[in-house]
Amino acid sequence: MATTAAALLPGGVEFAFAPRAYAQGQEPLSSWNNSAAKKAIVDFVHSTTVSSSPRFVPPEQRIATFDQDGTLWVEQPMYSQVVYCFDRVPALVKAKPELANVEPFKTVMKGDRAAIAKLPTPQLMKVLAATLTGMSVDEFEDQVKHWLETARDPRWKKPYTQLTYEPMIELLQYFRNNGYRTYIVTGGGQDFVRVYSERVYDIPPEQVVGSVGGTTFGYDSKGRPFLTKDPKLLLNDDKAGKPEGIHLMIGRRPFAAFGNSVGDKQMLEYTKAGEGERLAMLVLHDDSQREYAYGPARGLPDSRIGTFTQALYDEAKSKGWIVISMKNDWNRIFAFNT
Amino acid sequence: MATTAAALLPGGVEFAFAPRAYAQGQEPLSSWNNSAAKKAIVDFVHSTTVSSSPRFVPPEQRIATFDQDGTLWVEQPMYSQVVYCFDRVPALVKAKPELANVEPFKTVMKGDRAAIAKLPTPQLMKVLAATLTGMSVDEFEDQVKHWLETARDPRWKKPYTQLTYEPMIELLQYFRNNGYRTYIVTGGGQDFVRVYSERVYDIPPEQVVGSVGGTTFGYDSKGRPFLTKDPKLLLNDDKAGKPEGIHLMIGRRPFAAFGNSVGDKQMLEYTKAGEGERLAMLVLHDDSQREYAYGPARGLPDSRIGTFTQALYDEAKSKGWIVISMKNDWNRIFAFNT
Repeated sequence: MATTAAALLPGGVEFAFAPRAYAQGQEPLSSWNNSAAKKAIVDFVHSTTVSSSPRFVPPEQRIATFDQDGTLWVEQPMYSQVVYCFDRVPALVKAKPELANVEPFKTVMKGDRAAIAKLPTPQLMKVLAATLTGMSVDEFEDQVKHWLETARDPRWKKPYTQLTYEPMIELLQYFRNNGYRTYIVTGGGQDFVRVYSERVYDIPPEQVVGSVGGTTFGYDSKGRPFLTKDPKLLLNDDKAGKPEGIHLMIGRRPFAAFGNSVGDKQMLEYTKAGEGERLAMLVLHDDSQREYAYGPARGLPDSRIGTFTQALYDEAKSKGWIVISMKNDWNRIFAFNT
Repeated sequence: MATTAAALLPGGVEFAFAPRAYAQGQEPLSSWNNSAAKKAIVDFVHSTTVSSSPRFVPPEQRIATFDQDGTLWVEQPMYSQVVYCFDRVPALVKAKPELANVEPFKTVMKGDRAAIAKLPTPQLMKVLAATLTGMSVDEFEDQVKHWLETARDPRWKKPYTQLTYEPMIELLQYFRNNGYRTYIVTGGGQDFVRVYSERVYDIPPEQVVGSVGGTTFGYDSKGRPFLTKDPKLLLNDDKAGKPEGIHLMIGRRPFAAFGNSVGDKQMLEYTKAGEGERLAMLVLHDDSQREYAYGPARGLPDSRIGTFTQALYDEAKSKGWIVISMKNDWNRIFAFNT
């Protein structure tokens, strides 16, 4: 996707190619404090990649899976992909003016954030279906690219692709430097994340597993074949859908898995149930100053997004999963606040 | 899958690790005659991988897709996976004796090949569903491994995994040596092919795209998670399903695609519709002595399997797809007949 990456780089906007920069010289995992979490990572990688180790894992089996929203980048106050869907509504209504007076598009067009936030799930699903399906896969890719270039998050006023966690970018690179293939396993849309995964995470499209609908093959008026995105959901890549998606798309059990919510529980269970040494880690959002603090496990306010429950915390503790405190384990959150 | 590969190697049986052998010294594509087909391959690879070429393709975009049945290995007189399903019926009836008097299992248990061949498609589908789904993914893998060790094809009396075409094994290796990632894109079962793809083709499970059903995540009596194979079909990876499967599993358009039947037509069209130089090739089975001759395109007898129609031949000729004659373009078919 070299053409793609080039097309994504508008002149005036700074884009971070963090993985490549860190490959050249800088201390690995330098945004991690020297705490138990970092030690667990280094010990795991050492134990599974040093050929004399009894827990050595052959290179072809080295798979590490990473949730995206809340694990690799910011998920508050709303998943970026949902923001994308709302942002697409004006263009959609322009193309189909009859939608202007139909709910939920009418409410979205009014721009009343409180009313939008209260849209019931079936109405939200209508917005998602209308903005994520019905077009060709090439049109969709162009639409997402355009949005990534222009949209800014409400708090930091940065492109969403800059809201990745620097310690996790370093972690991806660290795993790859040790022969692991890194996969994103996200509840978000597979086609959506694939548009920027290679540029932002150095993860190629074929290593993105996400919620995914079918496509339909057809021909245009000149007889050229193309694929149209269907509303039919093939995989809801969340909760139990994550190990199911891993089997579908990878066909191997990961040796390491990273998440931050109840949506990642089954992926971590599935990972740890494999033979040999396995690593399971959960990011806890406990840093209201530098990012956000949410999830009841540590007495933080609950959130509809990225729920980290007490039950999940208890399971992590009882099963030896490691909880990463953003506040205590990371000395830096974003590349832009050095 | 190192453990897997080791487990698959019974003492007394010779297994060909052709790809690795060819990597060390032997002339590439030595089983190909110096005809137009070989020249087209060498020219394509040269044109897309030499950095000074105007048709240069960056390494991350180098994807080549290969149909399996009839393209990489023998598909006559019956797809190997269908033979597997019939061979599994006795074990199935032993586990569920009530099936012994129920069709189509009753007919299969009688072993009457003529009657089995006449089973209508819905009955055949019942055999496939009963032998390919309902068990855990680990149980299924063990069952397929056991069958691969013991089953022999009726003509050459060899394990099915030895019925791969040596020129195509060399071709896979040749593409990989030039930075291409090789994928199987098969109408056969994704989970079935993944059991042996790494050992037989040097293609890892994550690079096998096939017809695939869902799985269901659950826990055993000891609370350990496992995945059960569902009868629900997610992707019928044949005809239009092949480009759909490529988008689902790879997310990039191939630069080269290989098939042998009408089931591969859309994959080749999709491949050739991309920008830059693309290669599309079809294997024609016209060698009744060394393998089989079938398909009406060259006046050969038609077959329910691997149909190579006159229309497909005409499309190939009009669009610059290259037809490989097994008889004229290959000086060797199998590794075992040197």
